[in-house]
Amino acid sequence: MDSVVSSVTAKAKGVTTTNTSKLGFRIWDVADYVIPAQEENSLFIMTNMIVTMNQTQGLCPEIPDKSTVCESDADCTTGSAGTHSNGVATGRCVPFNETMNTCEVAAWCPVEDDAQVPTPAFLKAAENFTLLIKNNIWYPKFNFSKRNILPNITTAYLKTCIYDTKTDPFCPVFQLGKIVENAGHSFQDMAVEGGIMGIQIKWDCNLDRAASHCLPRYSFRRLDTRDVDHNVSPGYNFRFAKYYNDLTGAEHRTLIKAYGIRFDIVVFGKAGKFDIIPTMINIGSGLALLGVTTVLCDVIVLYCMKKRYYYREKKYKYVEDYEQGLGSDRDQ
Amino acid sequence: MDSVVSSVTAKAKGVTTTNTSKLGFRIWDVADYVIPAQEENSLFIMTNMIVTMNQTQGLCPEIPDKSTVCESDADCTTGSAGTHSNGVATGRCVPFNETMNTCEVAAWCPVEDDAQVPTPAFLKAAENFTLLIKNNIWYPKFNFSKRNILPNITTAYLKTCIYDTKTDPFCPVFQLGKIVENAGHSFQDMAVEGGIMGIQIKWDCNLDRAASHCLPRYSFRRLDTRDVDHNVSPGYNFRFAKYYNDLTGAEHRTLIKAYGIRFDIVVFGKAGKFDIIPTMINIGSGLALLGVTTVLCDVIVLYCMKKRYYYREKKYKYVEDYEQGLGSDRDQ
Amino acid sequence: MDSVVSSVTAKAKGVTTTNTSKLGFRIWDVADYVIPAQEENSLFIMTNMIVTMNQTQGLCPEIPDKSTVCESDADCTTGSAGTHSNGVATGRCVPFNETMNTCEVAAWCPVEDDAQVPTPAFLKAAENFTLLIKNNIWYPKFNFSKRNILPNITTAYLKTCIYDTKTDPFCPVFQLGKIVENAGHSFQDMAVEGGIMGIQIKWDCNLDRAASHCLPRYSFRRLDTRDVDHNVSPGYNFRFAKYYNDLTGAEHRTLIKAYGIRFDIVVFGKAGKFDIIPTMINIGSGLALLGVTTVLCDVIVLYCMKKRYYYREKKYKYVEDYEQGLGSDRDQ
Repeated sequence: MDSVVSSVTAKAKGVTTTNTSKLGFRIWDVADYVIPAQEENSLFIMTNMIVTMNQTQGLCPEIPDKSTVCESDADCTTGSAGTHSNGVATGRCVPFNETMNTCEVAAWCPVEDDAQVPTPAFLKAAENFTLLIKNNIWYPKFNFSKRNILPNITTAYLKTCIYDTKTDPFCPVFQLGKIVENAGHSFQDMAVEGGIMGIQIKWDCNLDRAASHCLPRYSFRRLDTRDVDHNVSPGYNFRFAKYYNDLTGAEHRTLIKAYGIRFDIVVFGKAGKFDIIPTMINIGSGLALLGVTTVLCDVIVLYCMKKRYYYREKKYKYVEDYEQGLGSDRDQ
Repeated sequence: MDSVVSSVTAKAKGVTTTNTSKLGFRIWDVADYVIPAQEENSLFIMTNMIVTMNQTQGLCPEIPDKSTVCESDADCTTGSAGTHSNGVATGRCVPFNETMNTCEVAAWCPVEDDAQVPTPAFLKAAENFTLLIKNNIWYPKFNFSKRNILPNITTAYLKTCIYDTKTDPFCPVFQLGKIVENAGHSFQDMAVEGGIMGIQIKWDCNLDRAASHCLPRYSFRRLDTRDVDHNVSPGYNFRFAKYYNDLTGAEHRTLIKAYGIRFDIVVFGKAGKFDIIPTMINIGSGLALLGVTTVLCDVIVLYCMKKRYYYREKKYKYVEDYEQGLGSDRDQ
Repeated sequence: MDSVVSSVTAKAKGVTTTNTSKLGFRIWDVADYVIPAQEENSLFIMTNMIVTMNQTQGLCPEIPDKSTVCESDADCTTGSAGTHSNGVATGRCVPFNETMNTCEVAAWCPVEDDAQVPTPAFLKAAENFTLLIKNNIWYPKFNFSKRNILPNITTAYLKTCIYDTKTDPFCPVFQLGKIVENAGHSFQDMAVEGGIMGIQIKWDCNLDRAASHCLPRYSFRRLDTRDVDHNVSPGYNFRFAKYYNDLTGAEHRTLIKAYGIRFDIVVFGKAGKFDIIPTMINIGSGLALLGVTTVLCDVIVLYCMKKRYYYREKKYKYVEDYEQGLGSDRDQ
């Protein structure tokens, strides 16, 4: 038996448009929604987002919540920065809007307001995007290597095929919506708050048979289990920023809280060839176990059966003491 | 036996210049060609690229291919976006150049034309770049840890050495060209379309011996196998963009299709100390197997040899039925 | 027995300010100090940095060191680029400052001077940042899955709790300073030159018992071992750049040499249920070993004891040659 060594690359394709009052008409392509651009065994596709445009370093009121709403400067502690703060408090209480005051913070201003996650997901069209997964495996012991783009797959087929459990089980191009559906979840639900999908590739190969029988089997699983009744901290999101310099050299940034689906590609596999040593160890142990039967038979025959005295007599040879024997010889 | 827990960091060094009509004279250093800047067990070095400068969101003709060349608006479907499209079709047929019309798309314009991969590779000088790999291993069961920068390696040696199988087998600085050559491939070929190189570090340690005998062994392997006769979807590339804002606040970007070599560092290793239990299990099984010989000898002697009746008589003690025996006693 | 399949996400929280003559007053939040924004099982937090602002492509003198200090152009080789150079030499010797000349290079100018690492660390306040780790595990054989946010953890508890070995051993929010302290190191020391911390999550589950007994155990370990007496190439750092375009379209960048702590999350685990087969193999081998005692007893009785001839006579049945026996019969 040998375990698999594998290399994986994943590449997304697809383009969509959005039209909102905040961002206007916008095109989204691969370079916009895959973050970071490349990873080792993983690919993140942004499906939803909260954009805070044109932030600069400055002073501004915090987002109102239990600890930031204030009535006077006395309610704000200078220099404090809670775990969930957007900045460091200046100690002043300033108007957030016409009805409410909050503590002022030194932060990237205006601060992000992520109270509402857009529903439905902003890039809900990501359902139709595709993922090309290239996987090469290698079994070092047997020096056997193979890729998931099988020898009979042509460039033309690869350009048009979409993986389907029944009709195209060896096509390495996956539609995002189908991946999530195969795992028993709804893409549109998952797109709102994000999540982790596992794409499992199983290569179980019996190398005593022909190499063409060693084939990849795909399966899909949502890796961030989601109890409906215990839904604390669901989904997957992170923040990143695009930095700009304006005319005066001042730094601006666009902060994006990105919700999305991370596709983790997990390659499993064991290759085996018939090997005499483990087989022998198992047979050996098995035979030893058979030895127990002899003992059991003896126990039954010698201790349990009615005629046990008779068998016992036959089984054991009573050795008289040699010295005594000599002595009794002399006595005669 | 225990499996290794390892941490890996990789750091590239090297600088080169290019001079093309499109980009002019340009310097490339680590911050330019390593994308993303850090990864866990992996490092990507860009060796070739297709740059599309100064893209803005707008409308422009698609790159001509079978599905995008058109004669009138009737050939273009509004809102369609194929998997390989650069944008979403507006339904208009517009001139691509003086001789050809293609469907117009809403996209980052102008759209990328990646029909021709630059040959030789744009950053072909990457062959001379170096990679410093720092690897720490730990065997939890034995609480044994070691790093691949061995105790006898000095800062001066580390600054000048280059790994060589024969002369410097423990220098953790690798020249990219030599890595690919060691794996039996040509760096310049690989640089054009990209690929995945595996750098394997093997730590097989017999902890019954001194710690100084536990040494890293490096080996190199191209992980994206490349059949010459089945060359569907070769190499490794991905797209990323650098975003800019202009005076009016409009967003521009430079789209880069990056081809390059991803170096995956794979750490193997098993440490062993003599342990009585598995040894005993194997000896036990072995002994049980020896028991088979007795049975085999008996079978030969009792069933196969000419004088088998004689031996059988000697081996078996025929127990007369006790009751019958008593009966015959009474008869006498 | 089955090995664990796991998915991990990590999210940092915290904000701090710095005030230096070079950068002025500045706020640092998650989007500024986590690079790249997301990784699979890992999270890098920048704790120290060397910033080189407003670099453009051009010609400038190298940083002085043994190989770059020059007296005339003859000391500089045109086109040379050492492994540790910042650019490609033009062959000219130019003044670096009032007292010293160095070779001119084509590079991103001004070149970075990283001779002095800021001490104490620039973002030393990172000690109070927190890390929320979400981990889902799955044992495929038993189809058993669980997450490290246990069913009894509420949203309110999750917002305020901090992991502590004694008081909060199941809180999945970790304070960076405490992680490093638990591993027996000083955060402020580590923050200066960077390093790798391992956060180990162990799920050893006996699935014959209730699922609520299967709990995560956290442990912390510094993965880049640091011998005080062999301190070659310590810490962890890498370079990245933020690119800007100015009015004329010329490209500028801010180069950052980032020192920091990479938190690698390693999930271990074996789940077991009682299984008869391995148990039987072990018992079998054990029994076979017992068989050795018979042989040993025989050896002692038949070869070592004083009365060995007597016992040997009793043990072995001497089979006379059958043919001979017949012959002697005939003789009579």
